[in-house]
Parts: sequence; structure tokens; C-alpha cells
Amino acid sequence: MDLATVIGIVLAMGLVVSAILLGSSLLIFISAPSALIVIGGTIGATLVNYPLGSVLGVVGIFKKTFFSTVENPSEIIARFMDYANRARREGILSLEPLLKEIDDAYLRKGLQLTVDGLEPQTIEEIMQAEVDYLEQRHETGAEIVAAMGAYAPALGMIGTVIGLVQMLQSMSDPSTIGPAMAVALLTTLYGAILANLFFNPLAGKLKNRSREELLTRELIMEGILSISKGENPRIIEEKLNSFLPPKQRQSSD
Amino acid sequence: MDLATVIGIVLAMGLVVSAILLGSSLLIFISAPSALIVIGGTIGATLVNYPLGSVLGVVGIFKKTFFSTVENPSEIIARFMDYANRARREGILSLEPLLKEIDDAYLRKGLQLTVDGLEPQTIEEIMQAEVDYLEQRHETGAEIVAAMGAYAPALGMIGTVIGLVQMLQSMSDPSTIGPAMAVALLTTLYGAILANLFFNPLAGKLKNRSREELLTRELIMEGILSISKGENPRIIEEKLNSFLPPKQRQSSD
Amino acid sequence: MDLATVIGIVLAMGLVVSAILLGSSLLIFISAPSALIVIGGTIGATLVNYPLGSVLGVVGIFKKTFFSTVENPSEIIARFMDYANRARREGILSLEPLLKEIDDAYLRKGLQLTVDGLEPQTIEEIMQAEVDYLEQRHETGAEIVAAMGAYAPALGMIGTVIGLVQMLQSMSDPSTIGPAMAVALLTTLYGAILANLFFNPLAGKLKNRSREELLTRELIMEGILSISKGENPRIIEEKLNSFLPPKQRQSSD
Amino acid sequence: MDLATVIGIVLAMGLVVSAILLGSSLLIFISAPSALIVIGGTIGATLVNYPLGSVLGVVGIFKKTFFSTVENPSEIIARFMDYANRARREGILSLEPLLKEIDDAYLRKGLQLTVDGLEPQTIEEIMQAEVDYLEQRHETGAEIVAAMGAYAPALGMIGTVIGLVQMLQSMSDPSTIGPAMAVALLTTLYGAILANLFFNPLAGKLKNRSREELLTRELIMEGILSISKGENPRIIEEKLNSFLPPKQRQSSD
Amino acid sequence: MDLATVIGIVLAMGLVVSAILLGSSLLIFISAPSALIVIGGTIGATLVNYPLGSVLGVVGIFKKTFFSTVENPSEIIARFMDYANRARREGILSLEPLLKEIDDAYLRKGLQLTVDGLEPQTIEEIMQAEVDYLEQRHETGAEIVAAMGAYAPALGMIGTVIGLVQMLQSMSDPSTIGPAMAVALLTTLYGAILANLFFNPLAGKLKNRSREELLTRELIMEGILSISKGENPRIIEEKLNSFLPPKQRQSSD
Repeated sequence: MDLATVIGIVLAMGLVVSAILLGSSLLIFISAPSALIVIGGTIGATLVNYPLGSVLGVVGIFKKTFFSTVENPSEIIARFMDYANRARREGILSLEPLLKEIDDAYLRKGLQLTVDGLEPQTIEEIMQAEVDYLEQRHETGAEIVAAMGAYAPALGMIGTVIGLVQMLQSMSDPSTIGPAMAVALLTTLYGAILANLFFNPLAGKLKNRSREELLTRELIMEGILSISKGENPRIIEEKLNSFLPPKQRQSSD
Repeated sequence: MDLATVIGIVLAMGLVVSAILLGSSLLIFISAPSALIVIGGTIGATLVNYPLGSVLGVVGIFKKTFFSTVENPSEIIARFMDYANRARREGILSLEPLLKEIDDAYLRKGLQLTVDGLEPQTIEEIMQAEVDYLEQRHETGAEIVAAMGAYAPALGMIGTVIGLVQMLQSMSDPSTIGPAMAVALLTTLYGAILANLFFNPLAGKLKNRSREELLTRELIMEGILSISKGENPRIIEEKLNSFLPPKQRQSSD
Repeated sequence: MDLATVIGIVLAMGLVVSAILLGSSLLIFISAPSALIVIGGTIGATLVNYPLGSVLGVVGIFKKTFFSTVENPSEIIARFMDYANRARREGILSLEPLLKEIDDAYLRKGLQLTVDGLEPQTIEEIMQAEVDYLEQRHETGAEIVAAMGAYAPALGMIGTVIGLVQMLQSMSDPSTIGPAMAVALLTTLYGAILANLFFNPLAGKLKNRSREELLTRELIMEGILSISKGENPRIIEEKLNSFLPPKQRQSSD
Repeated sequence: MDLATVIGIVLAMGLVVSAILLGSSLLIFISAPSALIVIGGTIGATLVNYPLGSVLGVVGIFKKTFFSTVENPSEIIARFMDYANRARREGILSLEPLLKEIDDAYLRKGLQLTVDGLEPQTIEEIMQAEVDYLEQRHETGAEIVAAMGAYAPALGMIGTVIGLVQMLQSMSDPSTIGPAMAVALLTTLYGAILANLFFNPLAGKLKNRSREELLTRELIMEGILSISKGENPRIIEEKLNSFLPPKQRQSSD
Repeated sequence: MDLATVIGIVLAMGLVVSAILLGSSLLIFISAPSALIVIGGTIGATLVNYPLGSVLGVVGIFKKTFFSTVENPSEIIARFMDYANRARREGILSLEPLLKEIDDAYLRKGLQLTVDGLEPQTIEEIMQAEVDYLEQRHETGAEIVAAMGAYAPALGMIGTVIGLVQMLQSMSDPSTIGPAMAVALLTTLYGAILANLFFNPLAGKLKNRSREELLTRELIMEGILSISKGENPRIIEEKLNSFLPPKQRQSSD
């Protein structure tokens, strides 16, 4: 559960609603047609912009911003120290029985390739291609949400101009100008809130999650390659530790 | 047929028209001169910006956003596994009879070069140059549509300023101010709709299509090079599979 | 003659003028002081931004957007096939008599270096440096025009604020407000038209011209290097053809 | 203590407050709800955008913009000249007793690896990974503050639109329009001040601090590698001096 | 003396002042508090953004946009031809007596390292580090001025919002609205003029100057390396000439 996402949205929306309630009823800020044009139009523009499959995948992507399952890098390093020491003492084939206990598909694949005795360079090519592909999929996800953050205020502006044109065309009764303009402004408000409190920060969180996950993958790749090259466990530890912030580093010494 | 493009445009435009109809007749939003200045001006600026041939090619480019012909990567991989096994067992010349059955010109050319016994490095140079060139042509296409998405709101703004100047110069009768301003705002509305519901998302879709097509080409290039280097079919499969999302991967084991 | 540039400007300006004439006389849109502040101010800011020589060179640069002299790539490839076959059959020195018939200075220089027997790597260094330099000069040209496209609307805005301040300071007679504001808006209009119908698209066209010219240079460099390495004419043809769109490719087979 | 940060904030805020006091009381510019929506909303959006840990770390990051502890590069170079001469004369192991006197963890680690006799390439990999990691953490810090600089004006705009809608809905008494609009504008003002006098310049200062610190790390890495390669002290001095502005360079000659 | 900078500023400011004088007295555009908040606030934000030393260095940087001391590249090439021929005929040590006549510290250092017999690769590392450092310092200078160009309009906007809030809070006498709003707009005007006629173009000029100077340094580095590698003077001339626009090239043949 990503607490920051939940706290952030509750805090920001709570403040916006409180600010409204201080000055008027919440009712004058609710307009189904305005919501429809902003939300529906944003979804429409996003569908034109991205393949159907990717847009439908956004629901799953949103979930990802609320839940986090990235493994702790320190644990991965500890695990690699174990593999490295074992490979040193008992040979690389001694890692084979461990393979079936590994949950992470990426780590298991890398270790399998190592146990199979492939060249480190070939292992690197295969593992790097996988990381590149993952990065690209993640980028597409964050990009879609960022695109929604760009289309929402544009749709808001379109809705407001439509409202203004209608107001200006029927300006016979001056007392209706104010309320008509207030309604016209609602789409701008919806667009700005959707973009700045939801889509843009969620796109940012997706990028951060992706960065963390990629770091873990690079850590795993570095570890696999070091083992397949038969490097000294102490050097492997130094290398992998440099992926951690200084505070989290542990030494097996 | 790219359903997402069609659904997206129908959804967004439908919502915009519904929003209009809720408040007034659609007629007050139709103005031929406004449409002419925004659309014609956008085309004019695009013609100054890009070569005539490229702009005329945009029609074909738009078609591309509605229809998709990218081959399924899984099928390409299956095909390469077949080639690789055949080349292993019967020698690389055994691929020659297959050449004439291949539809894709890029794959055929690559395989022809391999059968001809060129060095992998020379094959890579030729195939990479082709991919680079394709990427550049695609980028120009997406760039033109994106430029139209930038010029349309600018022309909309120019039209609105022209309308405002005319209104301000003849402000004798206050009752005409509202309608005159409403008309002036129409070009801004047209520009915003063209940019945000058509040009910008279509440019995005073109970039996505291009990315997919380039991935397929890279997959083909990787496969051709692996065969020409005489790599082990199992390693080829591992390499090519890393181009696929994990779910779509199949193993020949 | 670059028809697209001429057609584009005539089309866009014609539509803008027509849109004006539909609603009022053209006269209320003409203001010498407004034109002076926008055009003069843009030139001033550009002079501060770029060296005098480069700004004066912009006149020549504008000419370039109307006239095009890039040689047809297919013809260059045909020519290289001729050189390559000749060099194969009669030795590289047989190209020497052809040198004086070559108009293009870049091609002539490259071929001269080849005939002189320099190492391919040295030839590449010299020819690449020349291309890099050309690219930089082109970029500066396009950059200056793009900078004018950024300064013009800024000057337009400055002019409008000046007009608004003067109008607001002397607001005794309400009937003068409208026309005064109309005049103030003219600089904004001029800035927007200059930027979006002239400077920005012309900067774009310069970038496209430069891209074409650089492609031709790269094609020539690739051809020269292939000949100086004594490559097989068929492979040279494959390599050079990949610079062309598939439709334009010809085969000497 | 980073005087520039303190002077800059005091100067800018002092001028803003003076400008206000020249025209009215400061009181009409103070509104707790407006401050709450802008500041709280910005924090909320930032929490959605970044992991909780990183956002909480921002407090420590802000401190960093006020205090500077980067070591003087000239002193580091002098120290390296000492190490290099010592290593030359008495062998690399003679550096071991110095290790425990070194405060800087990065320098100590690098020297330890050198004394341990690791290959220069391995030392470079480990030290580079550490620098890369530091750079990434710094970038995240500056990015968070820059994101706050983007969210603050957006929240300001949202607050103003909310105020405008409320004002337009209850426009019965014309005399209340002015003050209501004034209050609505306060969130825009708060957002603009927070972004342009605090978040954006502070993000810039963080980037500058990070650049300085990275330069020092690169200087240390270069020095360590030169010593581990056993390079001539004079050449080491030339190399390290090129990290300094010409004025600060000293020669041991 | 950089004439373009002087002409540009005089031209643009002259036109702005003329435009003002055509419609009113210059006096209504002068407001010390407005100038103070825009200029002082911009300096304040810049101090928060950059280290004190760098901001104080901006005065020297501004001077640089008015005066130019870059040596003529043709002369540098002529000089290198002389060195190259001398080194060819009389050995590289024959360049030593020339060292003390060289004004340019960079050229002298490079030649000294060559005469000292260092490896070309070591010379390249040292000279490249120096160029990189110079580039970074130049970039910081241009960046600071560009940042001022971004803060000035933001401060102008802050000043205008402050003025608007004060005007709206005391809107009892309608006749004061106009002049109050006019005064409020002055900060926007000052910000726009400072940014678009001073800071932005000056930042651009700094970037251009830096580019010229870096080109000269690269030319010198290329020449030094060619001499230290003992290359043929004719090839050196070809290489260095490619740094010049075709018109300026001279041949020693």
C-alpha cells in the first residue's frame, strides 16, 4: 500500500473541498455535463493517442501507484552474497537446486542462464534486452497518464469557451451573466484539478516506481554477471552496495 | 482497423456536441469563415514549414492511424525459430528456397544477404541504415501532424484577436458586443478542438505505431544477425523472446 | 523554387485578409507605429542575441527557403555506382580525370582525398568535420529565425501593455476605450501573425532543408568511404540505396 | 551558511512586502484558507508524485540549500599530490596508515581499494557506481522541489477559479464583486510567490550544489585512478588542475 | 566591441520609447516601486538560485556580451601550419623557443605538453578536461542570465496581481480604477521588457560567444594533437580548414 499516494490525494482534495465549503455550498460546483465533457473528452483524446490495449491497461497501472511490491535491495544483496560464496566454494552448478525456490522470474532466468554456462556477454545481452523492454512498457504507462494530464485542462478550456459563447449569444438578461459564466468556468476547474491533483502526480509516481524497479533489475543483473564471471565475493559486495544509499549498506565483514 | 482511434474521436466529439446541445442550438457554433481561417491557415503554415511532398503525404499518414498492419511478433519469432533450426541442420543455403515465400521486404532482404554469405557486420550496417531511414520518415510524419496541432490554436488566437479588434472599433451598440465576441471566440474553439481532439492525439498515435513497427524491425534484424552468426537456436529464442511482454512468450521446449 | 513556401504564405495571408474584409475595412488593421515596434523590436532583440554577421546572413537564409538546389539522391547513387565499377576495373587512379567535371565541392574533395590514397579513417575524419560544421551553420540559421518567432509575440505583448496603460490612464471618455483597446491589440496580432505564419514555419522549413542536405552529404561520405575501402559495387549499391525511400530505389541488376 | 540563499529570500520578500505596504495594509493580503489550499494542495500533489520517504527528506534537502560543506578542490588536489609523491617514493602500501585520518568516506573507500591492489578498472566501476547513485539521489531531491514549484501556481489557479465561481454565483450586490475577486486572486499570488521566490530558485540551488559535489567526487575519482595506475605526479597535477578555474590553480613546481 | 549588442538594445529600446511618446508622456510609464520589485525581486530569486560568487560574476559576464576577443580562426590555422612545418623539418623540440611568445594560455600549455613529449592521448585528456571545464563555466554564466529572463516576467506578474488586489479592495471611486490598473500593469511591462529585450537575448549572445570560443579551443586541440602525432602538414591543413566556413579557407599550396 503506497500511503503517500492515498494521503496526498485525501489531503489535497480535502483542502479543495474545505476551501469551497468556507465560501458556498458544494452544490454550485457540481455539474454532470461539465464532468462528462472533461473526463469523457480526455478519455477520447487518450484513445486516439494510444493503442486500445495500452489505455485499458491504465486501470492496472493506477493500481500500481497505490501498491508497491519492490523487493528490498538489501535483501537481494544478502541473497547474492550467499550465491557468490556458494559458487566460489562448491562450483556454479551448486546453485541449480536453489533455482526452483526463487520467486522473481527475472532473477531465476538470469541464474538459470549462468548455471547453463552461457558466456557473461550473452547473459548480459538477454538480461539487458529484458530490462530495456520493461523500461519501455513502464514509460508507455507513465506517458499515457501524463497525456491525460495534458488533455484534461485542454478539454476544460474547450468546455469553458463553449459556455462563454453560449452566454455571450444570449446576454439579454444581465443577471444571468454571472451564473452562466460560473458554470462555464467549472470545466476549467475540473480540468485543472484532474491534471494537477491526479494525472500529473500519478504519472510522476509511476516514473518513480519504474525507476525503483529498474534499479532492482540492474542490481540483479550486476550480481548475476559478477557470479557468472566468477568474481571475488568481497568485490561483488562492494559493487552491489554502491546501489544502496550509504545508510542502508551492510558489510559481511 | 484501429478501433481506439475511431472510438476516441466519436466519443470526444459526441460529448462536445452534446455539451453544446444542452445549452443552445448547434448553429451558433458554426461559422464557415472561422473554420476557413483556422483550417486554411493551419494548412498554409504547415506548407511553409514542410516540403510539399511531405504535406501531401499526410493524407496517407492519417489513414495509417486508422489501420494497422504490424505483424504479430510471436509469429515472427516462431518463424525465426524455424529458420534457425533449418540453418543449423541443413546449412544456411537451405533457407534460399524460402525467400520467395516471404512477403515482408525487410525480412526478405535481410535473409537474402545472409544466404549470400555477407559478413554479419555488413548485414547489420545495411539493415540498420534501412531502420534509421524508416524511423526518420515516420518521425517526419508525426512531426507534421504535431506541427498542425501547434499552428491550429495559434490561428484560432489570431482569428479571435481580429474579431476583437473589429468589435472594439464599432462598439456603438452595446447589444452587439456579446454576439460579436461570441463569434470572435469561435476560432479559438475550433483551434483548441482541432489541436486537442485531432492533431495532437493523432500525432501521438503515429509515434506509437512507429514505435511498434520499429520494434518489429529490430526483432527481425536481431533474428537475421543471430542466424548469420550461426548462434544456437535456444539462445536465439531467449534473445527474441525478450522483445515480448512476458505473457506473450512461448517456449519451444 | 519551393512552391510549398509560396503557396503556404499566400494561402494563409489570403485567408487572414479575407477574414478581416468580411467584417470591416482592412484600414483599421494597419498601424505603422505598431508594425514598427513589433518588427523593429524583434530585429533589435535578435541583434542582441546573435552576432551581426549571422543576423545579416538571415536574408540569404530566407532566400534558401524559397529556392532548393539539393541534388537528386538517385542520381548521386547512379554516379557512385559508375565510380565504384570504374575503380574496381581500372584502379582508383582512373577516377582522377573525372575530378574536374564534378561541380559539388564536397564530393570533389572527398574523391580527391581518395585518389590521393589517404586512409579511409582520415578521409572520414575530414569529411565528417565538414558535415558537422555545415550542420552547425544550418542550425544557427534556423535558430535565428526561430528566435525571431519567439521575440515577435513578446514584442506584440509589450506593445499591447503599453497601449493598455495609456488607455487606462486617460479613461475620461468611455467612447474612446474601445478603439484605443483595438489599437493596443494590433501589436499582439502582428506578433502572432509574424511568428505563426512566417518565422516559425520558415524556421521549420530551414530545418527540413538542412536535414535533406545533410542526408545527401552523408550519402556522399558513405559512397566515398566505400570506394576508398574498395568495397564490392553490389554492396555499395545496397548501402546507398538504404538512404532512399523504397519507391525511389533502383537496382543495377 | 549559504549567504546568497538568505540574502536572496530576504531581499525578494522584503521588496514584495514593501511594495504592498506602499499601497495598502498588509492585512488584505493575508488569508489563512488561501494559504492552506495552496501550501496543503502542493504538499498533497507532491505526496502523490513522490514516495513518502523522499518527500519527508525534503526538509533535510532545504537545509542543504542554506549550508554548504563542499571541501575546497584546491585542498583535495594538494592532498592528492602528497599521496602521489608518497606512493611514488615509498610504494602504494605506504598510504595505508593515512587511511584512518581521512574524513571523507568516498575518498577513504577509493584509497582503501587502491591500497588493496584492485585493478584500476574495478576501482573505477565501484567509484563510478557510487557517483551515479549520489547523482540520482540529488536529482530526485531537486526534482521534488521543482515539482512543488510547478504545483504551487496550479493550486493557486485552482483556488482563484473556485473564488471566481463563488463570486459569479452570488453577484447580486455589485459592491462585493471587487473584494471577492481580490480574495480570489490571493491564491494566485501565493502560488506565484511560492514558485518563483522559493521552490524554483531553491531547486536551482540544489542542482548547483549537486554539480559542485559531483565535480569534487569526479576529482577524487580521477586522483585515485591516477595513483592506482602509478602515473607521474606531474601529470596527475596537470589533470587535476584542469578541474579548477585557471585563477585557483597552483603549481607545485 | 560587439556592435550588434549595442545596436540591438538602442534600436529596440528606442522604438519602445518612441511608441510610448506617440501616445502619451513617458512619465506615466515610470514608477520607482514597480522597477524595484521587478529588478530587486529578480536579483533576489537569482541569488537563491545560484551561488553568490557566480551571481557577482554576472557583471563581468555582461561585459563579455559587449566586447569580443576571440582570435581569428584563420590566423590560428596559419600559425599551426607554421608549427607543423617546423616540427617536420627540425623536430618537435624546435617549437620550444616559440613557447614564450604565445599569449594564449591554452595553446601554450598544449604546445608545452607536446614539446615535453607526452603521449597524444594524455595531452588530449588534459586539454579536453580544460575545454569541458570552460564549457561548464560558460554554461553557468548563460544559465544565470537566462534564469533572470525567467524570473523577471514572474516578478512582473506578482507585482501586477498585488496591484490588482489593492485596486479591487478599494473600488469605491470608479474614476480611480483605470489609473490604478495602469500602474499595476507597469510591473508586467517592466518584466516583459527586461526579459525579452535584455536577459533572454543577452543569454543567447553568451551562448553564441561560448560556442565560438569552444570552436577555437577545439581547433587548437586538434592542431596540437596532429602535431604531437607527427601528422603530414597537408593533412593537418585539410583537417583544420574544415573548422572554417568554405569562404574563409586558405590553402598553403
